[in-house]
Amino acid sequence: MSTRTEFLLVPAREARAARVPAGRRFRVIDVEGGQVVDLFAFVEDDVAEYASAEHTRVAIDRLFPLPGQDFVTNHRRPILRFEEDHSPGVHDMLCAACDPYRYRLLGVEGHASCAENLRTAMAGLGHPHVEVPQPINLFMAVRVNPDGSMSWGPAPTAAGDHVVLRAAVPSIVVASACPQDLNEINHYQPTPIGLELLPD
Amino acid sequence: MSTRTEFLLVPAREARAARVPAGRRFRVIDVEGGQVVDLFAFVEDDVAEYASAEHTRVAIDRLFPLPGQDFVTNHRRPILRFEEDHSPGVHDMLCAACDPYRYRLLGVEGHASCAENLRTAMAGLGHPHVEVPQPINLFMAVRVNPDGSMSWGPAPTAAGDHVVLRAAVPSIVVASACPQDLNEINHYQPTPIGLELLPD
Repeated sequence: MSTRTEFLLVPAREARAARVPAGRRFRVIDVEGGQVVDLFAFVEDDVAEYASAEHTRVAIDRLFPLPGQDFVTNHRRPILRFEEDHSPGVHDMLCAACDPYRYRLLGVEGHASCAENLRTAMAGLGHPHVEVPQPINLFMAVRVNPDGSMSWGPAPTAAGDHVVLRAAVPSIVVASACPQDLNEINHYQPTPIGLELLPD
Repeated sequence: MSTRTEFLLVPAREARAARVPAGRRFRVIDVEGGQVVDLFAFVEDDVAEYASAEHTRVAIDRLFPLPGQDFVTNHRRPILRFEEDHSPGVHDMLCAACDPYRYRLLGVEGHASCAENLRTAMAGLGHPHVEVPQPINLFMAVRVNPDGSMSWGPAPTAAGDHVVLRAAVPSIVVASACPQDLNEINHYQPTPIGLELLPD
C-alpha cells in the first residue's frame, strides 16, 4: 500500500477514476470554487455493487450523510465513510447525473456529460459496461421545499473547499467535474477538481 | 387492444406484472387500506430503460409528481402519466425497495421482499436479469424534515384508495404488495393490492 499522497487533477468537464484500498482516505477538492462534483464508488471486485443513494437514505434516515456517517451500497454495506466536510456543507443525492439525453432536451448534441465521463473512466479500468448510479453530487445546491418542490442554485463553494472520505472496502472511485454549463449549478463555467489519495 | 377491464389481485407480500399498451390507463388499488405498493415500470422492448426516480425528480423539480405530471425513464422520456390520485396523496420515491440485505440487517433470513418479488415477476415474462430501480412507493409515508432528516410513518390509506396512471409507451408494470412487517409502514400487517387495467 502506498503511503504517498497521490493527486489527480481532473480537468473541467472530465472525470478520473482511482482504485482506493480499504481504509484509505481521499479528498475531493473544488479547486477554483463554484463547481459540482459527481462522485461514484464501485466495489472493486464486483462493480455491480456500488454506492447507492436510495439505500444510503434508508440506512441513515437522511437525504445526505453527515460527517461520521456512511454511504452504503445497493447491498446495504458501507463503502465510503464521510469523514470531514471543509465546505459550506451543501450536497445533493437526488438528481441524476447529466447525460446525453439531458443535453438533447436542452437543445445540445454532443455535450460532455457526467454519465459519459463515468463510462469512459470505468472503461479505462476494464469495466466497459456499468450502470450509472445516482451520483453523490458534492457541492451541489438543491433545496427541498416544504411542498416537495426542489430549487436549484449555484455551488456555494470557494477555491480549495473539499471533503474527506474513507473507503470501507477496496473501491473504484470516479470523480467527474460536472460539465453542465447551461444552468447555474456551476456558475455557467465548469472548472477543474482534485481527487487526492491521502497518505495512510 | 383489449377494451375490457382486467383486474389482478396481488396477494399480500407478492407482486404481479402486466404488459400495458401505450395509452392504456390502469389503477393501483390499496384493497384493504394501510398498504404500501412498490411500483416499477419498464419499457417493454428494452427493459434496460425504466422509470427512474432521479430522472423524474429533475424533470419535474419535485420529490414526487403531482397528478398531471409524468414519471420519466433513465432515458428521460415519459413512461407513466400520473393521472388521478384518490388517496391522501402521500407517496415516496426516496427509499430503496426492501431486499434480502435489508431483512438480514433486521435479523431475518428468507423474508419476502419487493426486490425479489420484482425479479420473480420479471423472470415470469422472460426477463430474468433486470436492475432493481428505485421504486415508486405508492401510499408510503416518508416525510423530509427541514434539516434533511427523514421520518417514516404508517401508510395513511383507507380501503379502496387508489391512483390512476397511463402508460406513455408500451410498458411492463410490476406492482409489489410490500412484505415489510417489521416496521410500521404497513401497520405490521401486509395486505393485498389490486392492479387493474381500465377499458380503453
